[in-house]
Amino acid sequence: MNALVYHGPGRRGWDSVPDPTIIDATDIIVRIDCSTICGTDLHILKGDVPETPPGTVLGHEAVGTVEEVGAQVSTVAVGDRVLMSCVSACGRCRFCREQRYGQCLGGGGWIFGHTIDGLQAEYARVPFADTSVYKVPDELTDEQVLFLADILPTAYEVGVLNGMVAPGDTVAIVGAGPIGLAAILTARLYTPGRIVAIDLADTRLESATRFGADTTINNGRDDARAQVMELTDGLGADVAFEAVGVPDTFELAAELIRPGGRVANIGVHGKPVTLHLETLWTRDVTITTGLVDTSTIPQLLKLVSSGRLDPTVFATHRFGLQDAMSAYDTFADAASTGALKVVLEGSARRGSSTNDMALVAGGA
Amino acid sequence: MNALVYHGPGRRGWDSVPDPTIIDATDIIVRIDCSTICGTDLHILKGDVPETPPGTVLGHEAVGTVEEVGAQVSTVAVGDRVLMSCVSACGRCRFCREQRYGQCLGGGGWIFGHTIDGLQAEYARVPFADTSVYKVPDELTDEQVLFLADILPTAYEVGVLNGMVAPGDTVAIVGAGPIGLAAILTARLYTPGRIVAIDLADTRLESATRFGADTTINNGRDDARAQVMELTDGLGADVAFEAVGVPDTFELAAELIRPGGRVANIGVHGKPVTLHLETLWTRDVTITTGLVDTSTIPQLLKLVSSGRLDPTVFATHRFGLQDAMSAYDTFADAASTGALKVVLEGSARRGSSTNDMALVAGGA
Amino acid sequence: MNALVYHGPGRRGWDSVPDPTIIDATDIIVRIDCSTICGTDLHILKGDVPETPPGTVLGHEAVGTVEEVGAQVSTVAVGDRVLMSCVSACGRCRFCREQRYGQCLGGGGWIFGHTIDGLQAEYARVPFADTSVYKVPDELTDEQVLFLADILPTAYEVGVLNGMVAPGDTVAIVGAGPIGLAAILTARLYTPGRIVAIDLADTRLESATRFGADTTINNGRDDARAQVMELTDGLGADVAFEAVGVPDTFELAAELIRPGGRVANIGVHGKPVTLHLETLWTRDVTITTGLVDTSTIPQLLKLVSSGRLDPTVFATHRFGLQDAMSAYDTFADAASTGALKVVLEGSARRGSSTNDMALVAGGA
Amino acid sequence: MNALVYHGPGRRGWDSVPDPTIIDATDIIVRIDCSTICGTDLHILKGDVPETPPGTVLGHEAVGTVEEVGAQVSTVAVGDRVLMSCVSACGRCRFCREQRYGQCLGGGGWIFGHTIDGLQAEYARVPFADTSVYKVPDELTDEQVLFLADILPTAYEVGVLNGMVAPGDTVAIVGAGPIGLAAILTARLYTPGRIVAIDLADTRLESATRFGADTTINNGRDDARAQVMELTDGLGADVAFEAVGVPDTFELAAELIRPGGRVANIGVHGKPVTLHLETLWTRDVTITTGLVDTSTIPQLLKLVSSGRLDPTVFATHRFGLQDAMSAYDTFADAASTGALKVVLEGSARRGSSTNDMALVAGGA
Repeated sequence: MNALVYHGPGRRGWDSVPDPTIIDATDIIVRIDCSTICGTDLHILKGDVPETPPGTVLGHEAVGTVEEVGAQVSTVAVGDRVLMSCVSACGRCRFCREQRYGQCLGGGGWIFGHTIDGLQAEYARVPFADTSVYKVPDELTDEQVLFLADILPTAYEVGVLNGMVAPGDTVAIVGAGPIGLAAILTARLYTPGRIVAIDLADTRLESATRFGADTTINNGRDDARAQVMELTDGLGADVAFEAVGVPDTFELAAELIRPGGRVANIGVHGKPVTLHLETLWTRDVTITTGLVDTSTIPQLLKLVSSGRLDPTVFATHRFGLQDAMSAYDTFADAASTGALKVVLEGSARRGSSTNDMALVAGGA
Repeated sequence: MNALVYHGPGRRGWDSVPDPTIIDATDIIVRIDCSTICGTDLHILKGDVPETPPGTVLGHEAVGTVEEVGAQVSTVAVGDRVLMSCVSACGRCRFCREQRYGQCLGGGGWIFGHTIDGLQAEYARVPFADTSVYKVPDELTDEQVLFLADILPTAYEVGVLNGMVAPGDTVAIVGAGPIGLAAILTARLYTPGRIVAIDLADTRLESATRFGADTTINNGRDDARAQVMELTDGLGADVAFEAVGVPDTFELAAELIRPGGRVANIGVHGKPVTLHLETLWTRDVTITTGLVDTSTIPQLLKLVSSGRLDPTVFATHRFGLQDAMSAYDTFADAASTGALKVVLEGSARRGSSTNDMALVAGGA
Repeated sequence: MNALVYHGPGRRGWDSVPDPTIIDATDIIVRIDCSTICGTDLHILKGDVPETPPGTVLGHEAVGTVEEVGAQVSTVAVGDRVLMSCVSACGRCRFCREQRYGQCLGGGGWIFGHTIDGLQAEYARVPFADTSVYKVPDELTDEQVLFLADILPTAYEVGVLNGMVAPGDTVAIVGAGPIGLAAILTARLYTPGRIVAIDLADTRLESATRFGADTTINNGRDDARAQVMELTDGLGADVAFEAVGVPDTFELAAELIRPGGRVANIGVHGKPVTLHLETLWTRDVTITTGLVDTSTIPQLLKLVSSGRLDPTVFATHRFGLQDAMSAYDTFADAASTGALKVVLEGSARRGSSTNDMALVAGGA
Repeated sequence: MNALVYHGPGRRGWDSVPDPTIIDATDIIVRIDCSTICGTDLHILKGDVPETPPGTVLGHEAVGTVEEVGAQVSTVAVGDRVLMSCVSACGRCRFCREQRYGQCLGGGGWIFGHTIDGLQAEYARVPFADTSVYKVPDELTDEQVLFLADILPTAYEVGVLNGMVAPGDTVAIVGAGPIGLAAILTARLYTPGRIVAIDLADTRLESATRFGADTTINNGRDDARAQVMELTDGLGADVAFEAVGVPDTFELAAELIRPGGRVANIGVHGKPVTLHLETLWTRDVTITTGLVDTSTIPQLLKLVSSGRLDPTVFATHRFGLQDAMSAYDTFADAASTGALKVVLEGSARRGSSTNDMALVAGGA
């Protein structure tokens, strides 16, 4: 088969590689019908993820069709259409018991395209299938569920749920890239009173408005803290999400919240940040971090099925799977191409839904 | 002044009564600009509420303008436009400390039009003003906030919050009268996956659909339990609200929920009900009851201000305050008139908003 | 091997039966070192549990040594000493994912000595081993952990956790049989301010005092409701546990709680009960039911290991496993024998700990 | 009257000052029967708290007897014995409504001995009495409740509750000064499995053991992180408290916790700290800060009344109030004197309890 292979920093290829085979009795083999590229894949290509060896097939988000099942697999069968989570779960360890699959101690966690071959390929071996894949309801297209593999549960679990967004809240989102937009989309499930998006790029802020931000602030030009304070009677936001991953944006997020507020860190950080405890110690704040568990996939699937949530708004570009090399170019140059998520379509996949705007509220 | 006075079972009048005066230093006097009638007022008129003495001015929901403030009042001033909560809070007792104002031990709780003179009047004395009234934001009309005095916080606190509605949930609402409709409207703040309204009257079910129910069941004709099970793969609803107040509907609500589900009782009950512990003991259910605290008024005000929630959809009929007698006739005959809530307008009130449909989701 | 076999209502025997064998690859075979008898076993013998066919080996609580493991079992090995939970968990279904193992949809739940052969036997087949058994720390004796199979997690999860016991609370426990005593013992983990035990039998109330009740009330002689009100300034208990399983005790529990209080039902009910919603609808109460999940076994094991909790206080009588028939006689006649739990000791088991009194608080 | 007066950095006196008088109708005047000194008082004396003007009477913890009540005060009367909270609550603002009294927007918060005259005096004016003082049960001595004014609720709310300590948890406490000891004492209310105290001073670690620590680590000599990992199978503590207030100890606390663990900051910080998001971003951690609200005083009072909690263990030294100058010397030199808390006794106070060891667990 062919697959997108990492060949060391800066090098990748759409290569012919051996077909995957069942190794453990809990594995399945899946034909990839639909995959996508994540910012993390670009990090690997930059050489930022040393534990990923050259020769690894990249990708950790896909929808596919079960081709073969290991002897121990009982909940999916050949022919089933399944969503593969970016996080694998052994289902047995202490953390999997608590639905903290991202912390799996039994061989799972984020392994696809990281420590084992991933999902930007024609076929893939999927470990721990019974606890790591989700059957796709018949009425949904592949593209409707594809982004439930990673970006939407990440924003929802690590941002919205950790940040305990409540109806009426003012939510400030620092960073309006794809993950920030996913945070806007999923925050709306709790009907905040006001969503404030903050970024340095006007084009990203325009996307934020399309996704549902009520207010946008370009913090290259304007004083984001001052504006948030003005919007909130001087108290600050109820919740702030850090959705960039650098020290400055974390510090900004921490400055935006009110006494009793929450900062939910979603960004991937490579450096320490400064925490201003000399002011925050009195302010009753809660700061959270988290790796996605994808434990909310069943909940998000229900919302997509009922028409409350439309993830297809992320799909800005579509490529055949065999054109994955071009897809990477497009995705890596998002500033020019405006790419949010690129869809890699296998030859047998089900058609995409129309790209209508996002969240449809209860009953409307 | 004139006021709507209870004269014993079945008898009421729009009477001239003495103007109210400050009694305690925590009181204020308010000119009533906008009031409304509650089903509970009809119960009093039927003689079901013996603790309400003849001679009492009825009404516990109003918006008005402060005319006079007691010596101890520090948070509102003459001229302020305020929403009066149906529940008064001493602010000092154990329960008020916990925001459980409905259980106030210090002289508050539900007292308006119950144990003291109420708010269907040209003027009213309002006790514990600092902890029992809410300033109305300038940009909102009286009618936009009027229903935050009772019906919306009741549905939201006693139904939605007690029932812990979560995004994607199937919510079954037994009873589609005004309180059931308020439960639909406020449940939508949490984006349930499916709202099922159940009632014996098709006209009420049509209202339920307008308010946002996805599915309606006439349980005079159809088997509500069977239909809910079919909609939920045989498991049952995540949450059921009892919004009627009779034994049969409580039993139905308890039959509708899945293992681990919640029944939130909103209905006012006059008789014991049967709880089928012989089946429920194994099913991990949670059953809650509650009196409204109106502790969520600030949160609901933010949602109205931001355009996320439009309570004016309840206002089906409007009368001058001096026509309160006719308004009672209309409200009491809801089956014919289709009345949900009738608005009693004082001469000086601010104009009503247009009656657009209800909840507007985040960012749409 | 020999086992305690149910032969239809009123009939049981210590019979020779075939040795169990691995059926599914997730099974293990365990040599039973230590087992016990539950009130539920007596119910089966009375014929109250029609789904249990004659010929079934009884028992759902045991500690043993792994003799054989199925091909799919990865977390325990031959020779490991394990605690078997009374509830089996497939580990894959929706409810097992939420740690609601008692509601398992994948073939688990309470099956031992119910729908499959149980654990009062020399050997047993244990399904879903990876998610249903717990390794016993070396430093603990069999008897120290035996009661973590059912009675302690039942009281803790269905009583203490569902009832949300908090430090300083007044906790009323209606019923001072073994499960009521287990509720006392585990409630103490949250340091309630006062534990009130209520029962008709003075001997059981004496046990309650030994287990840590601060106040006991014989509600055959005294007015339990009046006494609880007196102890709580007329408000009522914060939490009440129903630990009997009949309508009267449930009604009593519901009468004992304060506004905002909780009733956690632990009792096994065979009949409907009356719920006095005509008074409770205004009182902000929460009523819960539940089947044990044994999801807290790891937590309870830590408390036993650290010396904070001593379950051996339940072990009033010990028998060789081969004397299980006599053990049933003793346990069934608890009123005369004073039996709380009887220990059935296999020939190879590890010695019992000394029977010191129960809970040892943090650091004392 | 006489009072302990701050005269600018490094200078204090036991001076004659005017008697306090009622200013606002919500005030009371209290005769101080029992007061104490806090580390924060020493900070003021160092000049670290510039908003405290010279001439201010210090002290924010006391028990006393009501001498005079303002016109609006309704819940206490002349002659009542009351505990004064270190935090005053207006009872009306948004934060007081949420029991977040430390963030009061209405003139309360920490004001005693900070922005208004404090409680190390023969008499004091106490604002917002209805919502800021607590009647002392007759059966309790002054000294039994004195430390509920600040140190115990601080440790309990900002440490134990924010850190969500649960039965069986491993709790690491960085810093074994008085606040760390208070954290040990109150953590025990939730029966953690193991309490680990970490400090540089062996004498403080000895106190920690007396207060209930199971393990102590001198992190001047030993590697605290390595030892905690060893105690927890390499995972880390469930909860860590920072109870010192310097960057190094915060960083240590953040290193000690397991994936999914919590750091509750209790320390008072003067400088920013480094937060190692480059490792923590994946670890699902929660970090909290907080100012004490003293909202738990009623709960703690119940625990003292029921004999579950004995705060008198903090009282290492006692002085007459008129000897406050010497008391400061003793308290400031804790390293030599071993002072935890010094009691300042007015002439009319009730006798101290015997100084038995601390927490008495439920029923033991």
